[in-house]
Amino acid sequence: MADAGGIAADRLKSFIERIERLEEEKAAIAGDIKEVYSEAKSSGFETKIMRQIVRLRKMEPQERSEQEQLLDVYKQAIGMI
Amino acid sequence: MADAGGIAADRLKSFIERIERLEEEKAAIAGDIKEVYSEAKSSGFETKIMRQIVRLRKMEPQERSEQEQLLDVYKQAIGMI
Amino acid sequence: MADAGGIAADRLKSFIERIERLEEEKAAIAGDIKEVYSEAKSSGFETKIMRQIVRLRKMEPQERSEQEQLLDVYKQAIGMI
Amino acid sequence: MADAGGIAADRLKSFIERIERLEEEKAAIAGDIKEVYSEAKSSGFETKIMRQIVRLRKMEPQERSEQEQLLDVYKQAIGMI
Repeated sequence: MADAGGIAADRLKSFIERIERLEEEKAAIAGDIKEVYSEAKSSGFETKIMRQIVRLRKMEPQERSEQEQLLDVYKQAIGMI
Repeated sequence: MADAGGIAADRLKSFIERIERLEEEKAAIAGDIKEVYSEAKSSGFETKIMRQIVRLRKMEPQERSEQEQLLDVYKQAIGMI
Repeated sequence: MADAGGIAADRLKSFIERIERLEEEKAAIAGDIKEVYSEAKSSGFETKIMRQIVRLRKMEPQERSEQEQLLDVYKQAIGMI
Repeated sequence: MADAGGIAADRLKSFIERIERLEEEKAAIAGDIKEVYSEAKSSGFETKIMRQIVRLRKMEPQERSEQEQLLDVYKQAIGMI
């Protein structure tokens, strides 16, 4: 393994290239997600609300329910409902 | 202090309003920063490079110098320079 | 005005320093906001829910109401409620 | 296709599930990237500098070279070098 400036050049290059390949895959999937939202929008769905749904479904039902109840309590307390 | 759903409504409202005032001030300053960059751009400066300058000046000179040297070592190692 | 590398050095320095002062002010306010949330937490409030309240209050009541209704429709459609 | 609240429930559910599968894949790849950086760190590399390398390699060599030169001009102008 050749050294440049005291570091293992081949090893560094290998790490960088692995990261770049993974970053490309990640960007491709991010593009796919964008396309699904775009397709949903064309079908008449509100993507902003869809994003909220996706975020809410990541939570445990119990936790989600508690948070929704607490949100209602806070809303009522400050006169939002 | 009135309670709503078991919480101290006035106290919550006071916290929320303080946060909202501070958020407004923060947004105003963010707007000022944007304007300075906009003015600099009109004067012919590259704001992208200016942002790098601002970021670099936040670092200690010693730390910045070490990082710049290491960046050069890495660049050389993988054949970027 | 002295030039360095073909640019108006004093003018650039002035822009950078104005930005830095504004960035400091912004950071100070961000710190104040953090403190209010911290104080609210010590008083027993859920800051996560408070952040939702702050976000919701930024919206027009009409818009907020429509979004909440649509969220309920979507939740029901996919069996979340 | 069943409707709930006036919307095409099955279609919405299908969109949401496609997004969720893609989000899972994206999170898995993000985890892989984190692991490569972690492995590189264990091998003695500075991941902060590696991230700069990855960012710089995304740019066209010509563009990168111009930006680096301009950064030096700005640095000199405000007395950083």
